[in-house]
Amino acid sequence: MTGPPIKLTQTVQKGGCAAKVSAQALREILRNVRFPNPAESFLPNSLLVDGRHFDDASVHRLTAELAVVTTLDFFTPIVDSPRIFGAIAAANALSDVYAMGGRPLSALAILAFPVASFENATVEDVMQGACDTLSRARATLSGGHSIDDDTLKFGLSVTGLVHPDHIWTNTGARSGDVLILTKPLGTGTLTAALKRGAVSEADIQPALESMMKLNNAIDALEHAQVKSAVHSATDITGFGLAGHAMQMAKASCVDFEFQFSQLPVFSQTREFLREGFLTKAHRTNREYTDKSTNWNAIEDADRLIAYDPQTSGGLLLAVEASQAEAVLRALRSDFPNAAIVGEVRSRSRETSFVNFN
Amino acid sequence: MTGPPIKLTQTVQKGGCAAKVSAQALREILRNVRFPNPAESFLPNSLLVDGRHFDDASVHRLTAELAVVTTLDFFTPIVDSPRIFGAIAAANALSDVYAMGGRPLSALAILAFPVASFENATVEDVMQGACDTLSRARATLSGGHSIDDDTLKFGLSVTGLVHPDHIWTNTGARSGDVLILTKPLGTGTLTAALKRGAVSEADIQPALESMMKLNNAIDALEHAQVKSAVHSATDITGFGLAGHAMQMAKASCVDFEFQFSQLPVFSQTREFLREGFLTKAHRTNREYTDKSTNWNAIEDADRLIAYDPQTSGGLLLAVEASQAEAVLRALRSDFPNAAIVGEVRSRSRETSFVNFN
Repeated sequence: MTGPPIKLTQTVQKGGCAAKVSAQALREILRNVRFPNPAESFLPNSLLVDGRHFDDASVHRLTAELAVVTTLDFFTPIVDSPRIFGAIAAANALSDVYAMGGRPLSALAILAFPVASFENATVEDVMQGACDTLSRARATLSGGHSIDDDTLKFGLSVTGLVHPDHIWTNTGARSGDVLILTKPLGTGTLTAALKRGAVSEADIQPALESMMKLNNAIDALEHAQVKSAVHSATDITGFGLAGHAMQMAKASCVDFEFQFSQLPVFSQTREFLREGFLTKAHRTNREYTDKSTNWNAIEDADRLIAYDPQTSGGLLLAVEASQAEAVLRALRSDFPNAAIVGEVRSRSRETSFVNFN
Repeated sequence: MTGPPIKLTQTVQKGGCAAKVSAQALREILRNVRFPNPAESFLPNSLLVDGRHFDDASVHRLTAELAVVTTLDFFTPIVDSPRIFGAIAAANALSDVYAMGGRPLSALAILAFPVASFENATVEDVMQGACDTLSRARATLSGGHSIDDDTLKFGLSVTGLVHPDHIWTNTGARSGDVLILTKPLGTGTLTAALKRGAVSEADIQPALESMMKLNNAIDALEHAQVKSAVHSATDITGFGLAGHAMQMAKASCVDFEFQFSQLPVFSQTREFLREGFLTKAHRTNREYTDKSTNWNAIEDADRLIAYDPQTSGGLLLAVEASQAEAVLRALRSDFPNAAIVGEVRSRSRETSFVNFN
């Protein structure tokens, strides 16, 4: 033994989603870039889904029955235990494939760490956590790239498959659909409290387990023969429920009505938000969504729940109303906190709104 | 204008391949990791090529006629101009797909940079350089991930396609084959000289152009109907000619005989190596290959050419001898420095050797 185990969150300034470049900064940078023209690619017209509607991954059609889903995600530690960090990072990266209605096939590791100062066992544990998660997802780890860097970063580039006629995009939510959220909210404030030493990993165990959980809803939905009831899906990550709901509502040209009291939250979420365990994203997510949200008698402090940046958060599904209860039953075995949280309405104005009631 | 343009190589300690975690360190870390079992993946037996033989990318079979190639590569700046850096990083990442006999379909960007201190124009130029290269490769840029970080890193995760019966792996070189190298050697020492201010980018223009050049040999070889003459291929990158040749010889269970005088090198390569513009990789590549190489009357100083770590280096092809001249002719229009540099022999001992004569 060589002293107490390393606490990963203490090795970085900004953890997880907080290190992500903001949507606005990125838009500024990419505004003038001339992207390759998909129509001139060697498989013209194969690009079915790109980043335009903030979908979680891109999709290219290969044959009439087969499309390939690609996504990548990596970040700095948001928890202290290397194995839990690796498991969360993998579940978070795989989630984008599940959110498109696909299944992950393979992954490549993205790894950066200080070679001289980190013990091999730390990096080994990160990799093992990711491999355990990939095994559960029945995906391979077929390679990767690693560099010597000042701080640990880890993530995966994931390749998945989906039938081109059954892609869950952000654009498919229809008026009358029921909104279902599969995981509780609050990982942003809970991991902020962990980083500042206010709680231990044991104190926030339900949130850690939730972040390690695969967003594999598709197996249960297929088994219950209700998969086709899902019209649209996204996963809730850095932009919080408000941000991702806004993107989905806009992409689908509809309004979303949330019943605030129905939102699943971790038991300590409200307490920690009130105590001020916040990240920069709590502010930027509010700014990002301010013009597209209405709050009906929801206290300011509670609104932070919808701004809380999630890591490996749940799926938000827009589901055919008549099958919503059947979908919820199918989900509950894997996602005991899954809940009906609102509904989809026709747009009341020229632009989409997300209403919290 | 806000002062002189930023010199990217001065913003990082270690540039390009020098920042890569060494093969040995990585092996140590991965030794005990329990990887997902491909036989238990949701497409069992689809994994045709993984990292075991140091192939450049992994390959999964999707149908009898279609396999998907995945690879990822990213690094810190090795040149000063953002646009050239982006173009080189893209060509380098795409190269792994070409080295498997595949064609790139799409890419995701891997981007890290100091948001507060970098001008948007710098990052925009990096992205534009990559997009220009992707356009030439007829591939799409369909997304990516960016984080706020202390130093600039950029690269791509690339998805390509290949016919499962026509994959170029490291294992296919046969006794009697002729070895062809498509690009000159020396980018390691030339970019080391650039980083230390001994030369300007204009002084090493041929090397920059070579690194930006796509390793797309396949179009020319298909056009000349000699593609099937290629039995095995790899691209020469961080481990240098000696390292990648050793990996290919071992994977194919053969010896390689190089005619040292036939190796294409940039005009300043020998001069800069003698002047001591070296990287850590010159030493680690020698150590990595020491037990598997023989040097017949090659001066110590010259051997550094084979240890020189390449960024976006050429393809090393093992080609059916009777078609070697036809392959060379087909390559020369795009790769004027392509040369026959040696041949493949039966193994003379229990393990493979790379001989430089």
